[in-house]
Amino acid sequence: MNSFIYDIPVKVYFGRDQLQHLGTELKKFGRRVLLTYGGGSIKRSGLYDRVVEELRGADLEVFELSGIEPNPRIESVRQGVKICKEQSIDVLLAVGGGSTIDATKFMAAGACVEHDAWEFFGAGAKPIERALPIVTILTLSATGSEMDTAGVISNPETGDKLGRLAQPLLPKVSFLDPTLTYSVSKYQTACGAADIMSHIMEVYFNMNKDLFMLDCFMEGMLKTVVKYAPVAIAEPDNYEARANLMWTSSWAINGFINGGKKKAWSCHPMEHELSALYDITHGLGLAILTPRWMEYCLDESNVDRYVSFGVNVFGIDPSLEPMAIARESIKRLADFFFVTLGLKSTFTEVGIKREDFKLMAEKACRYGDIKGFKTLAVQDVINIFEMCL
Amino acid sequence: MNSFIYDIPVKVYFGRDQLQHLGTELKKFGRRVLLTYGGGSIKRSGLYDRVVEELRGADLEVFELSGIEPNPRIESVRQGVKICKEQSIDVLLAVGGGSTIDATKFMAAGACVEHDAWEFFGAGAKPIERALPIVTILTLSATGSEMDTAGVISNPETGDKLGRLAQPLLPKVSFLDPTLTYSVSKYQTACGAADIMSHIMEVYFNMNKDLFMLDCFMEGMLKTVVKYAPVAIAEPDNYEARANLMWTSSWAINGFINGGKKKAWSCHPMEHELSALYDITHGLGLAILTPRWMEYCLDESNVDRYVSFGVNVFGIDPSLEPMAIARESIKRLADFFFVTLGLKSTFTEVGIKREDFKLMAEKACRYGDIKGFKTLAVQDVINIFEMCL
Repeated sequence: MNSFIYDIPVKVYFGRDQLQHLGTELKKFGRRVLLTYGGGSIKRSGLYDRVVEELRGADLEVFELSGIEPNPRIESVRQGVKICKEQSIDVLLAVGGGSTIDATKFMAAGACVEHDAWEFFGAGAKPIERALPIVTILTLSATGSEMDTAGVISNPETGDKLGRLAQPLLPKVSFLDPTLTYSVSKYQTACGAADIMSHIMEVYFNMNKDLFMLDCFMEGMLKTVVKYAPVAIAEPDNYEARANLMWTSSWAINGFINGGKKKAWSCHPMEHELSALYDITHGLGLAILTPRWMEYCLDESNVDRYVSFGVNVFGIDPSLEPMAIARESIKRLADFFFVTLGLKSTFTEVGIKREDFKLMAEKACRYGDIKGFKTLAVQDVINIFEMCL
Repeated sequence: MNSFIYDIPVKVYFGRDQLQHLGTELKKFGRRVLLTYGGGSIKRSGLYDRVVEELRGADLEVFELSGIEPNPRIESVRQGVKICKEQSIDVLLAVGGGSTIDATKFMAAGACVEHDAWEFFGAGAKPIERALPIVTILTLSATGSEMDTAGVISNPETGDKLGRLAQPLLPKVSFLDPTLTYSVSKYQTACGAADIMSHIMEVYFNMNKDLFMLDCFMEGMLKTVVKYAPVAIAEPDNYEARANLMWTSSWAINGFINGGKKKAWSCHPMEHELSALYDITHGLGLAILTPRWMEYCLDESNVDRYVSFGVNVFGIDPSLEPMAIARESIKRLADFFFVTLGLKSTFTEVGIKREDFKLMAEKACRYGDIKGFKTLAVQDVINIFEMCL
């Protein structure tokens, strides 16, 4: 059991009618605000007008950067850095899902250095010692970026999609209003659910011995997604379902559940190569990969983890044989993704081709084998990809 | 489902060998440290020497206040305030359990005002707008004071034992080393377990509709205490058990599980009158009261809560009749406290007399009925006390 540091000083306004506090919170950091967002959805929903009204009411000066793409690109980050520097921005306000928030984090960090923002990524990455303050308004429950220190950025020039963690990237304040996710499509809700579950399972499936209490929390969050994702898909404006998914998405990846576990993640590095090359939705890639990865890794040495998962999340009868429970738990998870949530279940269906497996597997292992639940070398990754066809 | 604000910016060093960071953390706040602690146990254990060595090594100037009593008294707070003012203290370092940390919180707040610290309590209490920074080293898993905004202080002159919440009282940094609780006696470990469970149950047994995800967390924490308190009692130096109890004690009461629930607590206000008048251990009083309170409140309108509790915490067969599950869940809890943990089970055994029931019940309801899980007027409190005889 390893020691750890817990340090997540994000203030969260959770619920309806919290945006009235937006101006007060932003003003703590200064007057010049860079508002960042993606496409036009926040304009169509009326959220944009609501936000601008709050900012104007608080006598803030607003600059804007829109058009941040899903799987956000380094070029958007560079544009944001330029505005921050030219306009002496005091605080960034990201309105959107994980893509907008991720990109905004690196704008905030890039504004504090002279070098290009892409140098924060990859081998020999530059340190992130400072960032401008970041405030977020979340519109999609999935990545947890609103309460964590991480972000993932794509670089189409190099074909890379790389993540980075740094404490200064943590938002100062996040607004989580479940009603803002009512307009999220059934498909995006399903992909978000798969993403949340994967964040938890990457930590849960780990051979490091850690706190039982955290295992209980993880099982509770997984049960919450299993219970409420179908409700949110059937009734998009079900507040209870959206609220449970939203708060779970934040706690799935803010670092709390890690405790002292130090093992690497497995499915995320594999998936990032899929979405880097094919631009598919991250959660969909994870849904396709996860049950196959579980199947590939299962053996006598780790079967107990599958048993806890199956019994405590899916309610499988604990009196069955461990291997039977393990296999049933994989089946239940696959059924949840591909039947209940209605996600596509194979690479073939989403157009990912065998000819790219070797390239993607090599990229996934570019810094060495993936030392996660089970160590995966290039050939292991290819084998898992084969199972996804 | 109510909205809420989540704001718990405490940095926690969890695990062995974390005290090496103590000097660095304290120095962020200044050079003049007031070290507070209770009796001699931290000297006997060697912790005092270890702490002083760290402080000296970091070139900090150390002042001391020892002798903070269990159920800490306002007089100790006043002494601390005096030292803070006279010595221009920059930061307070509390080493101990909830009593020491609670008292230290009000020293830190009292140092920032001109009036007497007792004016922070009771009807017409003065605001707490500022406090000197507080750092804690926890030696007892129970009250959660190391990660919350609350404290409880006794005033023998008035016979009061009163709590107060205020955001400035939140510690900046807390050190949680499970090995520091190895020396906690079987009795104090049992009382701490009851206290932790009560903190969770005061929130869990609540008719406000709230997040299922938080219910899962609460059930997980209760299961953790049920699993590990007996282990810690049987094997005082079992790291896994001590670690699970320690981290659970913090999360049981730091506010996270509240979500948007606004209902008052029930057993704590009743118990505070017991320990104010009789000076019994807080957790013991809670253990005696809680099963009786559950029994007193149970009816058809709230039986579902008992069912969830019984099934998810104690593993009672969900196919039984709801009322049967509810009664069994109360029995299991009582057995856990009085058989497994070996705590005394009645007021008679601990010397609490019927002649004081009316006085204590009136004090518990001094601000009106206790509007908790079920509203309790003075006569209800007396009835529950009667059940404890």
